[in-house]
Amino acid sequence: MTAFTVTRTIAGQQRLSRKIIRSGKTIAIVPTMGALHDGHLSLIRRARQKADIVVVTVFVNPTQFAPHEDFDRYPRDPKGDIRKIKEAGAHIVFMPKRSDMYPHGYETYVTVEHMTGVLEGHSRPRHFRGVTTIVAKLFNIVQPDVALFGMKDYQQAMVLKRMVKDLNWPIRMIVCPTVREKDGLARSSRNRYLSPELRAQAPALYHALKTARLMVRDGITRTKDIKRKMRSIITKNAPDAEIDYIALTEMESLKPVTSVGKNTVASLAVRLGPVRLIDNMKIT
Amino acid sequence: MTAFTVTRTIAGQQRLSRKIIRSGKTIAIVPTMGALHDGHLSLIRRARQKADIVVVTVFVNPTQFAPHEDFDRYPRDPKGDIRKIKEAGAHIVFMPKRSDMYPHGYETYVTVEHMTGVLEGHSRPRHFRGVTTIVAKLFNIVQPDVALFGMKDYQQAMVLKRMVKDLNWPIRMIVCPTVREKDGLARSSRNRYLSPELRAQAPALYHALKTARLMVRDGITRTKDIKRKMRSIITKNAPDAEIDYIALTEMESLKPVTSVGKNTVASLAVRLGPVRLIDNMKIT
Repeated sequence: MTAFTVTRTIAGQQRLSRKIIRSGKTIAIVPTMGALHDGHLSLIRRARQKADIVVVTVFVNPTQFAPHEDFDRYPRDPKGDIRKIKEAGAHIVFMPKRSDMYPHGYETYVTVEHMTGVLEGHSRPRHFRGVTTIVAKLFNIVQPDVALFGMKDYQQAMVLKRMVKDLNWPIRMIVCPTVREKDGLARSSRNRYLSPELRAQAPALYHALKTARLMVRDGITRTKDIKRKMRSIITKNAPDAEIDYIALTEMESLKPVTSVGKNTVASLAVRLGPVRLIDNMKIT
Repeated sequence: MTAFTVTRTIAGQQRLSRKIIRSGKTIAIVPTMGALHDGHLSLIRRARQKADIVVVTVFVNPTQFAPHEDFDRYPRDPKGDIRKIKEAGAHIVFMPKRSDMYPHGYETYVTVEHMTGVLEGHSRPRHFRGVTTIVAKLFNIVQPDVALFGMKDYQQAMVLKRMVKDLNWPIRMIVCPTVREKDGLARSSRNRYLSPELRAQAPALYHALKTARLMVRDGITRTKDIKRKMRSIITKNAPDAEIDYIALTEMESLKPVTSVGKNTVASLAVRLGPVRLIDNMKIT
């Protein structure tokens, strides 16, 4: 069971998962869209501590991209991914084909209603429907006991936690800290598309978030004041940035707060040339 | 494991299902809204042939009723149900509370898009969203290998088959024949609300369906001719009937046909006083 395996069909992965479960072992899943970076690898290492068998799924999911978005130029490196996943100590890579996941006549979707209308959902209306649907499918195919997601996609993690709770999958959801570059930029498969000039401006997001946290430590709690400061940091340090949103929300519910409370998360989305960057930080 | 058990919490049922699976046994689920009749009992008996452990769920699901529909007066008989389920040879009854299934803040739904806009879905717009959502939840709670549904709710069975296929639950779906009264009326928990006068008219649905099948045997294939004859049978034999729809569709896709093909199902919905009756028959 510990021999490293790449599965490419739904039926094949389901057979394998069934065998693992019947043998009394537990399964952790790390869903990815490939083009793996250190953030993914830290999830895999963490997963090894949480279950006997770690399954990493690699699938660039078309239903979470809008027609004008970057599905076609999303980075793909299946061979490199398999090598990295093996090195990180996972046991199985599930790499399905699009036509197997969304065959002709496909028409079923999972929707989390309210939490998906804000933040990313406001800018990307059908994005989360694609995310919840593909993760539902992966859960049913892999049958995990534990699932690991990165905090970088903060809203995604909260939406998926809500989905699992509402639809009662017997799966423990673990959200892991964002892995950053030395200068604070959150690791993302899309960072590679930043030119050197834009890459140099990108840490402004992290600086804005860190400043928000410092302001709260200094006793400033008015959302308006904190957001204004964050905006000015980005404008000054990333002159090419177009800010999509800056938000302060209650962590689990994603509800906006007017004054910082116990579980407030600052999050933001910024377009920098061809790349849309997101990042967030718990500021209390 | 064969001692008869009634579970009343999601966590309790999940623990029990996990134990059964780890012991190498298979599970069959028969989802019901209670008020059991012979149709349900035949599903339970069939389920016993398909898996080691049979779980019958009893839950009157609020999300599949529209506000003006009969949720409040839907028949409820939990004690009688438990007795009947035990007698039919099932092993576990799962009887959750509404507040456990749909707690405060609930907001996740499963939707099958196109197949739910026709027939019943046309008359009951959000009905199937409620059905697919509750069945998704029950699947995740009970973790069955096999699920059994009655053909009386023909569209429901096809929609759920589509959902399971699209979202990849490793569950075998079995659709069982409709159980009828001696005079042909399909068994339904709602039949008890028919007055003797209306009850006497109710077999008209079955007669219309049987006539459709006979017409096809005699070489008549034009949908229009068959539907006209069905309508006239109902109007003549059930003077109080208000016909909601009469349809001839391809069995799996639910697409209307203009001429009878290999897998054509005739289905109809008729209001008879306080009760809305549905029935269907494969006519080829």
